Amino acid sequence: MYDIRGLNEECGVFGIWNHPHAATLTYMALHSLQHRGQEGAGIVCSNGESLFGARGMGLLTEAISDAQLESLQGYQNAIGHVRYATTGASEIANVQPFLFKHSKGDLGLAHNGNLTNAVQIRHALESEGSVFQTTSDSEVLAHLLIRGKSPNIKTNQKAALNQVKGAFSCVMLNTNQLAAVRDNNGVRPLMLGEVDGAYCVASETCAFQAIGATYIRDIEPGELITFSGENDIDYDYYSTDINHNMCSMEYVYFARPDSEFHKHSIYNVRKALGKKLASEMGIEADIVIGVPDSSLQAAKGFSEYTGIPNEQGLLKNRYIGRTFITPDQSVREKQVRMKHSPIRDVIEGKRVVVIDDSIVRGTTSKYIVKALKSAGAKEVHMGISSPPLIDPCYYGIDVSTHAELMAAQHTVEEMQEMIGADSLTYLSVEGMHEVFHEFDSKGECDACFTGNYPIEIVDHQLPEVKELKRRGV
Amino acid sequence: MYDIRGLNEECGVFGIWNHPHAATLTYMALHSLQHRGQEGAGIVCSNGESLFGARGMGLLTEAISDAQLESLQGYQNAIGHVRYATTGASEIANVQPFLFKHSKGDLGLAHNGNLTNAVQIRHALESEGSVFQTTSDSEVLAHLLIRGKSPNIKTNQKAALNQVKGAFSCVMLNTNQLAAVRDNNGVRPLMLGEVDGAYCVASETCAFQAIGATYIRDIEPGELITFSGENDIDYDYYSTDINHNMCSMEYVYFARPDSEFHKHSIYNVRKALGKKLASEMGIEADIVIGVPDSSLQAAKGFSEYTGIPNEQGLLKNRYIGRTFITPDQSVREKQVRMKHSPIRDVIEGKRVVVIDDSIVRGTTSKYIVKALKSAGAKEVHMGISSPPLIDPCYYGIDVSTHAELMAAQHTVEEMQEMIGADSLTYLSVEGMHEVFHEFDSKGECDACFTGNYPIEIVDHQLPEVKELKRRGV
Amino acid sequence: MYDIRGLNEECGVFGIWNHPHAATLTYMALHSLQHRGQEGAGIVCSNGESLFGARGMGLLTEAISDAQLESLQGYQNAIGHVRYATTGASEIANVQPFLFKHSKGDLGLAHNGNLTNAVQIRHALESEGSVFQTTSDSEVLAHLLIRGKSPNIKTNQKAALNQVKGAFSCVMLNTNQLAAVRDNNGVRPLMLGEVDGAYCVASETCAFQAIGATYIRDIEPGELITFSGENDIDYDYYSTDINHNMCSMEYVYFARPDSEFHKHSIYNVRKALGKKLASEMGIEADIVIGVPDSSLQAAKGFSEYTGIPNEQGLLKNRYIGRTFITPDQSVREKQVRMKHSPIRDVIEGKRVVVIDDSIVRGTTSKYIVKALKSAGAKEVHMGISSPPLIDPCYYGIDVSTHAELMAAQHTVEEMQEMIGADSLTYLSVEGMHEVFHEFDSKGECDACFTGNYPIEIVDHQLPEVKELKRRGV
Amino acid sequence: MYDIRGLNEECGVFGIWNHPHAATLTYMALHSLQHRGQEGAGIVCSNGESLFGARGMGLLTEAISDAQLESLQGYQNAIGHVRYATTGASEIANVQPFLFKHSKGDLGLAHNGNLTNAVQIRHALESEGSVFQTTSDSEVLAHLLIRGKSPNIKTNQKAALNQVKGAFSCVMLNTNQLAAVRDNNGVRPLMLGEVDGAYCVASETCAFQAIGATYIRDIEPGELITFSGENDIDYDYYSTDINHNMCSMEYVYFARPDSEFHKHSIYNVRKALGKKLASEMGIEADIVIGVPDSSLQAAKGFSEYTGIPNEQGLLKNRYIGRTFITPDQSVREKQVRMKHSPIRDVIEGKRVVVIDDSIVRGTTSKYIVKALKSAGAKEVHMGISSPPLIDPCYYGIDVSTHAELMAAQHTVEEMQEMIGADSLTYLSVEGMHEVFHEFDSKGECDACFTGNYPIEIVDHQLPEVKELKRRGV
Repeated sequence: MYDIRGLNEECGVFGIWNHPHAATLTYMALHSLQHRGQEGAGIVCSNGESLFGARGMGLLTEAISDAQLESLQGYQNAIGHVRYATTGASEIANVQPFLFKHSKGDLGLAHNGNLTNAVQIRHALESEGSVFQTTSDSEVLAHLLIRGKSPNIKTNQKAALNQVKGAFSCVMLNTNQLAAVRDNNGVRPLMLGEVDGAYCVASETCAFQAIGATYIRDIEPGELITFSGENDIDYDYYSTDINHNMCSMEYVYFARPDSEFHKHSIYNVRKALGKKLASEMGIEADIVIGVPDSSLQAAKGFSEYTGIPNEQGLLKNRYIGRTFITPDQSVREKQVRMKHSPIRDVIEGKRVVVIDDSIVRGTTSKYIVKALKSAGAKEVHMGISSPPLIDPCYYGIDVSTHAELMAAQHTVEEMQEMIGADSLTYLSVEGMHEVFHEFDSKGECDACFTGNYPIEIVDHQLPEVKELKRRGV
Repeated sequence: MYDIRGLNEECGVFGIWNHPHAATLTYMALHSLQHRGQEGAGIVCSNGESLFGARGMGLLTEAISDAQLESLQGYQNAIGHVRYATTGASEIANVQPFLFKHSKGDLGLAHNGNLTNAVQIRHALESEGSVFQTTSDSEVLAHLLIRGKSPNIKTNQKAALNQVKGAFSCVMLNTNQLAAVRDNNGVRPLMLGEVDGAYCVASETCAFQAIGATYIRDIEPGELITFSGENDIDYDYYSTDINHNMCSMEYVYFARPDSEFHKHSIYNVRKALGKKLASEMGIEADIVIGVPDSSLQAAKGFSEYTGIPNEQGLLKNRYIGRTFITPDQSVREKQVRMKHSPIRDVIEGKRVVVIDDSIVRGTTSKYIVKALKSAGAKEVHMGISSPPLIDPCYYGIDVSTHAELMAAQHTVEEMQEMIGADSLTYLSVEGMHEVFHEFDSKGECDACFTGNYPIEIVDHQLPEVKELKRRGV
Repeated sequence: MYDIRGLNEECGVFGIWNHPHAATLTYMALHSLQHRGQEGAGIVCSNGESLFGARGMGLLTEAISDAQLESLQGYQNAIGHVRYATTGASEIANVQPFLFKHSKGDLGLAHNGNLTNAVQIRHALESEGSVFQTTSDSEVLAHLLIRGKSPNIKTNQKAALNQVKGAFSCVMLNTNQLAAVRDNNGVRPLMLGEVDGAYCVASETCAFQAIGATYIRDIEPGELITFSGENDIDYDYYSTDINHNMCSMEYVYFARPDSEFHKHSIYNVRKALGKKLASEMGIEADIVIGVPDSSLQAAKGFSEYTGIPNEQGLLKNRYIGRTFITPDQSVREKQVRMKHSPIRDVIEGKRVVVIDDSIVRGTTSKYIVKALKSAGAKEVHMGISSPPLIDPCYYGIDVSTHAELMAAQHTVEEMQEMIGADSLTYLSVEGMHEVFHEFDSKGECDACFTGNYPIEIVDHQLPEVKELKRRGV
Repeated sequence: MYDIRGLNEECGVFGIWNHPHAATLTYMALHSLQHRGQEGAGIVCSNGESLFGARGMGLLTEAISDAQLESLQGYQNAIGHVRYATTGASEIANVQPFLFKHSKGDLGLAHNGNLTNAVQIRHALESEGSVFQTTSDSEVLAHLLIRGKSPNIKTNQKAALNQVKGAFSCVMLNTNQLAAVRDNNGVRPLMLGEVDGAYCVASETCAFQAIGATYIRDIEPGELITFSGENDIDYDYYSTDINHNMCSMEYVYFARPDSEFHKHSIYNVRKALGKKLASEMGIEADIVIGVPDSSLQAAKGFSEYTGIPNEQGLLKNRYIGRTFITPDQSVREKQVRMKHSPIRDVIEGKRVVVIDDSIVRGTTSKYIVKALKSAGAKEVHMGISSPPLIDPCYYGIDVSTHAELMAAQHTVEEMQEMIGADSLTYLSVEGMHEVFHEFDSKGECDACFTGNYPIEIVDHQLPEVKELKRRGV
């Protein structure tokens, strides 16, 4: 009935107020956020009276045609969204921003995160007559926003935001204002910028670079910022119960290296994770290589700490390939080669440390070790620049079930053997937090590494969800 | 705020219960109903527990891919919809069947017609907290259905149907039943059939021919038929206030000639309209030709009555062309030729009666008269097999504003001159009704010809809609 | 080695000289000739110095994009081609016009017909060093044209044309002239027209209607017309051995009804074929119907002669469907219904004469008889408005092998039984010729009905082709 | 008349003999060679009697559909080609492999390089009656091959190859043999491999990695290797006039880092180029960064030599963007940001050395310096890991005219100022050669850096080509 797995997704949001090229800048910003979601994309604009939108499946260039983008010219205010490809629920109905039509005025909504009491609220709303078209938690938030009874929009926004639990960095476009909010646990990032005198917000600062905007500061947990009028900005908080639980995986894997959190580049954070891993790992080797692209910085940090030379020993093919449906096993085995290839000349005869940011199912790790060995590596030591992934995320990332997580099912020793590495070392949880704190982070969620969930997963206590989980759905 | 014009649309619906190839037969049926809507198409299936769907923009073959159709195999119950291309609101969010997710169970809904109190109900629902994603009247009906408080689905259906006014032929798919309903004025057609022991319903009987189904009978105004279990069928009425206001334009133009209403083919009705026109028109001529494809039968009837030979004097190009955006006026003028071409040899030196079913804007009529004259016609007399279109339809057909209707702005004499015909004759309203009654029709709506609207247009009395109309929006 | 079957094809050609919108008019003309070829289309233009082209697979709208058409603007001279979908050899390399680059100047070539000594010439050319990229006979003609040694283009053209045998209506674009030629047997049609003071040629006059051109006259067998300079026209013949062997199937089936041969519309020719069939057939019946669209005129003629009422008893679905790959036999059987549907009301209880223009494999005929009977026809008599198809065409139409032709394998009595009709009557060969002569035709090829091939099939005497045929390739 | 510019192109070739999955492996190999050409791709297979092919425009996944690849299953022998996007001549007719049909048997040809006497030979062939469909030099080579008069294919191949001058690494597929040849100056690479007991050849060894093949050795200048029968291999030379003029730009820029020449990885060659540049440059700085992706290794080498830390200071967006056609200058200026973005945190306050492999027009260099400075770089010193590009290449790379080459028009000092760098240093020609020789290269072409063309550019002496050049075409 409810698809718990389908709620888990990672996305990117953007919003801009009162810029003559609002739609075009949103498009360019979404392009820079494409790594946060490739399943679908959309833009909703306001002309001050109504909202209009375009959305579609696939990469941004596929989702929004030239003609559609053209049709959004001339509007000053816009929000946009890119959506991650989760298995199954790939349906156009789920692509955001959502656009709701109401006699009090239209509402556009784009959300990054996951609400943990969406099912509970949904039940309550349904019992009062609400009707839903999707199973999306974002639709629940939109209902709460629209059902607000106050003539003041912000009052309604605060009331709605105080009802939902979970992770959310969200932009809400009304005809006469744009609001940006970050949940009071600060799980997902949200940034404030300015371009050509107009305010903008984005999931990551790389979007600001892409459009030539200045990065003003991180939006704080619980903060609700409203843009209206010419360039009026209103700073407020929807809650006083503020916690700092920034998602560790944003640092480790999701964010782009040129993005900044708290004015520090992810690039440097990842290098520091590599250094810390090196300090904990203690290994002798001839070269250290990173799995491209996300682990190159950690490898560099590892190299700087240990003095072991850093080489680019693995190459990633930039062109998207095709998976052949073939009855022939030998051809199928060859296919995995199309994505990464080792540089024999660099690896042959060497003791290699290979750095990756995480191990999910272990498939890629197995291939990489095998490829390095077949390229002549004498030893392959794998270092992971984060702790073992042992628990699912309920706050917006699709690492869903214990069954799928190799580290939830096996000891590190077992994993090392399965992967075929000569050693396997993970960064410690403490080490990871230490690194983040060096970069001015005030606290991070580490639930996927520890099972300590900082925000209550309300829906999991509902009898029907428990029943679903019991039945393994 | 509300787009009154966008509510007007013509569509086709289909539903089938308990057939092993439900989705495939729905697809084939929708293909035969394609003339009722080319903007979008969709199919929703039930597996007895949940509903699943696929929908898309464009013709059926574009809207639903092979892979999507494949993914719907194995389900026994299905509904489908084709949607007419109205200007502007071409958005995927408007493509039906709508699919709603609710804790009491999913609902699929496909609707042909237009509700005339949708805005009023919508206001009421919004004030109770309902949230809408589209301006579609069908979404309003779905909300009423889902908000029903009874544990009995049919009780809720009846309650909802009694709240809405207007024209609707509608299929509603729940996980354990399929219901088909025709409004109590019987404006839009809805037919009952049977194939391989399974029941099915369709907007027109041509869908039954397409899938090899038997045409049982027309569903009556106000009738609510429910299919459930193996092959259980429940006949009921949601209202006792039954009227017969079948849309005249379904007879005149919309339905396919091989479809039947009351067991009489549209083919024969249209021939009879041509005969009646001939009896009223009284003209001497050498040949009579019909504008292809919809007016060929009326021309044949005209010929049979008058003895004037019927020839195929105009040819229609079967291949869809392209409109050139060109600054050159002479090329633009040539473009109209790409659609219809006269057969000179047939026309030259003749006094020609040309029969068309209706005149909307007059553009095509002007071209046809010009083409016939340039092909050598000595005289061109235009006969229209229906009365002048002087008022908009609020019951589901997109002949929207007075300003667009040539006959609402001009006398027949003025029109004759503008079109360039030697004479212009319309069928009388009485003549038209007489024909329909010969074919066992019990009563028809003629509002677009007379302004006598049989069903109250509630929304037009709402202050904000009046204001919109005053401002000419 | 050589694909004899692939040489058989039906196509449409167009050419225009010195018109400011040459490419656009060619595009519009090709659209009107689309019935002559749906596999591919192309346009080649000249700017007086070089030739440029665009071509692609599929219907015209798919084959040539807006951007490609735009890129051909500004050139005054153009030729175009639509190509018929033959099985197998659907390759972009075969789509015409061909464009050849030579130091003496470029050549564009578009050809409708089939050369019967192409393989022989090809062998000779290959032995002199020529190299071919396709198996197309048109490429052979192009080689002959380009290899001409005279400084005078027309001298070379005449020399080349006198070497080839077979059927060809051909347009040849050089940088400073456009030539149109029809083979000396006059098998394929080719027409001369004029638009806005510029000359044009086309396979059928419907292309002239489409662009607002005046139809001047038919180009004669053996005639070679050259356009150059401002509007210079040069009338000449490449041969004095002139015969009149117009393809009968152009009259019977291929040409559009609004096209004219010898200033008579195909519409009237087909009516006359129906009349002649009626005069030979002698049948009592209640109604006569034509198989849409190509046999509607013959049915009308039949009706006029016999007085049996003509009704539109079969409807053709205008929307292209999809063939389902399904293991279920019952679904497969339903699929044939998607193309034609009978109008029960018209047919029930009637003795029906159904007119078709020809029977190739018999599949459609079987379905039509079955459909009419299941719609309640008391008797179904099938009349064919041409003689039995018993021999392949080697002059440009894809009715390739004896094995595929029902009438080559069976007597008319056997066919009647296989098709399930109560009677089956073909038009006589003599009757057919009489009709054509009434419409000023000077002689027609009837090889596919009689086996009397008016032009030698040289390639069939080649040992390797005989061997291929012996092996049944 | 002749498009000299259009002849310049860079491509990739592959061939495989007697492998049960020939087409699939060719597809996978072409995917790994995609960096050598993105304009078009094709595969031609042999079944031992005939050749069949598929080719299309765009990236491999666009050019060859699943259905097309499927249709090539079951053949044992194949060649493939990817083609570089040169401006203008983007036409399907130019996509290789070319496939020629001849009575002596079919020929498939795929070529990487450029013939310098193609126009001259073409003239000669045309005067003997040859006809060409393209202006491609590869078509000239094919004509020579096919016109060979000997019954022995290799005799004809040698004769043909001895007539052409220029750069060519070429695969030629006949029905009963596959031949691979490298020109006697060895300009373009060609490699010999073996997979599952079958021989294969490829432009680069990365193709061998992709299919799990073993890299046997480089094919030598002038070598002609023939595969036939089960696994027969015949080593031969078509010429005794052997020179070693490997293209320097293959080392510097074109080849993939994981490819190997003379058993040395390009990765290590590029590192060595960076070291050599460092030894010549002598600079003080805080960090050194490479322009991704092609200059990362040179930057690493530079860092190793100087001890200046190597950082990834520039990020490249992996998603292909869209260029907006916008009248607004400010938006246009923002667009360049979408491709590369600097990592502020790494760069701010630093003296930066940025390494690039070459400067063509200078546009990217200007943007990169500006981006680094606006990210806070105190100084930006640009080092180029190859000498200034001052002359066009006539051997297969599209760096076409002097006018387009910044270094051909300006001194290094002027360039430094135009680019905005604090210094600009190029690697010396001698330094570059020294590096190559360290990696066992026997000699390289440096014409684009020195104007010393090792192979005569015959066509440039032709009067008509001179005239074209004089007129600046």
